[in-house]
Amino acid sequence: MADHSKNHADHPGRMGKAAYLEQLLPLQVELSCVERRLEQTGQRLLVIMEGRDTAGKGGSIAAISERLNPRRCHVVALSAPSEREQGQWYFQRYVPHLPAAGEIALFDRSWYNRAGVESVMGFCTPAQTAAFLDQAPRFEQLLTEDGLLIFKYWLCVDQAEQEQRFADRRADPLKRWKLSPIDLKAREHYEDYGRARDRMLKGTHTAWAPWTLVDFNDQRVGRLTLIRHLLDHLPASLRRAPPAAEAEGPLPPLGTAPQVERFRGPLKPIPPGV
Amino acid sequence: MADHSKNHADHPGRMGKAAYLEQLLPLQVELSCVERRLEQTGQRLLVIMEGRDTAGKGGSIAAISERLNPRRCHVVALSAPSEREQGQWYFQRYVPHLPAAGEIALFDRSWYNRAGVESVMGFCTPAQTAAFLDQAPRFEQLLTEDGLLIFKYWLCVDQAEQEQRFADRRADPLKRWKLSPIDLKAREHYEDYGRARDRMLKGTHTAWAPWTLVDFNDQRVGRLTLIRHLLDHLPASLRRAPPAAEAEGPLPPLGTAPQVERFRGPLKPIPPGV
Amino acid sequence: MADHSKNHADHPGRMGKAAYLEQLLPLQVELSCVERRLEQTGQRLLVIMEGRDTAGKGGSIAAISERLNPRRCHVVALSAPSEREQGQWYFQRYVPHLPAAGEIALFDRSWYNRAGVESVMGFCTPAQTAAFLDQAPRFEQLLTEDGLLIFKYWLCVDQAEQEQRFADRRADPLKRWKLSPIDLKAREHYEDYGRARDRMLKGTHTAWAPWTLVDFNDQRVGRLTLIRHLLDHLPASLRRAPPAAEAEGPLPPLGTAPQVERFRGPLKPIPPGV
Amino acid sequence: MADHSKNHADHPGRMGKAAYLEQLLPLQVELSCVERRLEQTGQRLLVIMEGRDTAGKGGSIAAISERLNPRRCHVVALSAPSEREQGQWYFQRYVPHLPAAGEIALFDRSWYNRAGVESVMGFCTPAQTAAFLDQAPRFEQLLTEDGLLIFKYWLCVDQAEQEQRFADRRADPLKRWKLSPIDLKAREHYEDYGRARDRMLKGTHTAWAPWTLVDFNDQRVGRLTLIRHLLDHLPASLRRAPPAAEAEGPLPPLGTAPQVERFRGPLKPIPPGV
Repeated sequence: MADHSKNHADHPGRMGKAAYLEQLLPLQVELSCVERRLEQTGQRLLVIMEGRDTAGKGGSIAAISERLNPRRCHVVALSAPSEREQGQWYFQRYVPHLPAAGEIALFDRSWYNRAGVESVMGFCTPAQTAAFLDQAPRFEQLLTEDGLLIFKYWLCVDQAEQEQRFADRRADPLKRWKLSPIDLKAREHYEDYGRARDRMLKGTHTAWAPWTLVDFNDQRVGRLTLIRHLLDHLPASLRRAPPAAEAEGPLPPLGTAPQVERFRGPLKPIPPGV
Repeated sequence: MADHSKNHADHPGRMGKAAYLEQLLPLQVELSCVERRLEQTGQRLLVIMEGRDTAGKGGSIAAISERLNPRRCHVVALSAPSEREQGQWYFQRYVPHLPAAGEIALFDRSWYNRAGVESVMGFCTPAQTAAFLDQAPRFEQLLTEDGLLIFKYWLCVDQAEQEQRFADRRADPLKRWKLSPIDLKAREHYEDYGRARDRMLKGTHTAWAPWTLVDFNDQRVGRLTLIRHLLDHLPASLRRAPPAAEAEGPLPPLGTAPQVERFRGPLKPIPPGV
Repeated sequence: MADHSKNHADHPGRMGKAAYLEQLLPLQVELSCVERRLEQTGQRLLVIMEGRDTAGKGGSIAAISERLNPRRCHVVALSAPSEREQGQWYFQRYVPHLPAAGEIALFDRSWYNRAGVESVMGFCTPAQTAAFLDQAPRFEQLLTEDGLLIFKYWLCVDQAEQEQRFADRRADPLKRWKLSPIDLKAREHYEDYGRARDRMLKGTHTAWAPWTLVDFNDQRVGRLTLIRHLLDHLPASLRRAPPAAEAEGPLPPLGTAPQVERFRGPLKPIPPGV
Repeated sequence: MADHSKNHADHPGRMGKAAYLEQLLPLQVELSCVERRLEQTGQRLLVIMEGRDTAGKGGSIAAISERLNPRRCHVVALSAPSEREQGQWYFQRYVPHLPAAGEIALFDRSWYNRAGVESVMGFCTPAQTAAFLDQAPRFEQLLTEDGLLIFKYWLCVDQAEQEQRFADRRADPLKRWKLSPIDLKAREHYEDYGRARDRMLKGTHTAWAPWTLVDFNDQRVGRLTLIRHLLDHLPASLRRAPPAAEAEGPLPPLGTAPQVERFRGPLKPIPPGV
């Protein structure tokens, strides 16, 4: 599983890797069943991940999608809008990425940018944020009435932990890309982000598309909590195991001796170990 | 890292997990540097993964993309074409997914479907396959002349190993989705696939977009070999480390005491351990 | 102007072509001013044309778009949904075609298909139509609150006139494509369409996106009425003439003698009159 | 028909409107037959219109598309590329608009921008233009080999006539949008455009996608010449009339008395003449 949290080991009281993987695996089995059930029922699932920088959005998405079919489960991480997109209805550029029948979409950030980073960093006007907070629940209501299942997660991280992760990223060439100048500037706005988040939760926590807050100060614990919550709150029809018969028994015998990949042309595989 | 190959452990002579992860990590660091260099130079990278069912395409893509920026590195796994798409130029539906400046696209299967599964299973005519084999190198030449970097990998797996993996999938609820009826029917066509592959390699192995064959009978070794090959064959400009200065030194001090995520509304995080 | 209504001349009491063009021209001048005002203000305009077969949707769109900038004014006439689109939120495939800042979109049929042809011909369930009628006003409210201007026109035609036009089409090779088997079957459902339309008007005629019914038994009169209505109901800011200064005065002199298109290669223009 | 060329009347020797329409109509009938034949055979047709400003591209497209099915015949007039598109393969943003089976696409300007306006006005480097001229024929060859029919028209207009049209546009509120600052600057580059055009014709006039030059100093004559040329050079299979049987004979009788549009709700049509 995606798990690069070497620093976790340094923190006494953090979940160890072995325990994490042991608990993760059966959850991934369940997710895989859910995926097949979705395919059978034609239902659609949208999971939105939001949270401060470093909270753990990407890692959670990886933990969910890792063993799912990439043709059925799409990760959506949109770049900044083009100039033309900026002149469109705010939700317009997200709509084409909503899942079709039998599909899952995992949003790494979402339309809630307008209530968070865009608002705090001044990329939109207060009136635009207010309009967004008014529209988002109604937009989501249209989707959920139509049968779309929406789960919205806010991944919580305290500033001391966030500072530690920023420092780790700065020191780690593998993670340095995650540190943009805007991220660094955001450090000075921890409280502002908190206020923006409270306003967002207040305005957009609805019966049809509720927010769930998950403590991600320990990322492994956070991921397990999040996935368990997701699985527990899916409709019963999706949690029921698919009929066992579908793949029962061993494969029919091959009938011939198994072959090796033989290449008749000049191209040969790179020998292992080179 | 994505590594669910529990069966590997059962095979004497297969690479162990610890050794694998130890070797993978520095390669991922290099990939991350490449990604930042791409962003600086505006170059574009396309990696195509092809191979028989179970060969290890998805796992290799996960190993590459795992620590890259999802806004810069896109996994492309297209579903079957719609009826309208079937009436278009064969390459048309792939073109919108080619990477833009500074981006990486990882194709899980590609236009080479026409030379492989579509040809073997009779989803297209022999004339269509012949036309494809004639067009593909010229199409790719247009792209590479324009500066796109194309890497095409064929992941090799012997039938005995493939049979073992099919059997594992059948037994493993996490992997059962990977077993479609077409896959099972493909078992009877191992040799036909080999012939189709040889013809494809013969027709589309070019100086500007060469194929590389990698032995994936041991998936861990295969992934490491593939990533090493990719890194070794990138242009020198992309392998040079980005200027160290970019993130040197510790973060500037925060200035205030670090805060905790405090929620003023009624919504509270799920307590860890629930 | 698009005006192929030769049969009109046969009907006493129908508007003559000369009178039509004389009245149309100043309306098109105004539309052109509106387009430039939209560009200046960044506003967006959506015009939806609905009505029975033969009512005159295409001709009205042509009359509006004819002298507008094709890079700013888009005609949207979507084909039947693909299988994947059928498994999406009903409005999803229309959303990418909503106009961006400064643009006009002219919809030749629209999401209202679900209340009309799909409902009458049994392409959707009564529950789906009911859900649509509930969603459409709320969806449109999101758009209009965001500043999108929506005009919805129902073009009225009596059955005797429609029958005459069907007969004309059948006899006219230029128009025969407009006669699909579904159209012919629709003849038997004139009343059903009327009932479906009444229900649609009842459910979706709102303060923010009202329907306007225009008599199109005389197509020329209908087009003039529709365009006049559109111009009269745009916000005042869009009707004000753009500053005259923008293109005042003659062009600066050319400075050299005007040249002729001279072709230095072997290719020469087709001589006129050949 | 789209015909706003009032100034034509002022020029002795120009074709009159009545003669124009009389000749246009049978050509449009043929185009309509071609469209139905395309639908039956699944062939695809791409028509590219290029030429100096004011040459008559938009009017020619209108004359062709006017009576065709908007769901089958698409006008493609792309705006300037976004920043992301600028970092893609030059042809990438055009490819999604290539016609599918049974469709016609009419391009109002095209990838040839790179050989024309972009080259003359310095929006690309000489190396980029050279690369384009090298790629375009090979790109088009891939398309035509795949069965796409490509027609490329250059609409010729002498500078004196162009100057007259610029002056007309400046004076005409209906056409002023057609006069951008770049257009005006282009006046000083008539010769440069000619040189760029000669180079483009030299490099991209091929057996599989030849250029045809049409004299558009008299727009009406130009349109008729162009459409005639198009019809005369389509494959024989598309020019054959569709089977007459398809819509023979009168419509079956209606069976009931024809009804009038009766509205049961409060909404009533705008009375004609208001």
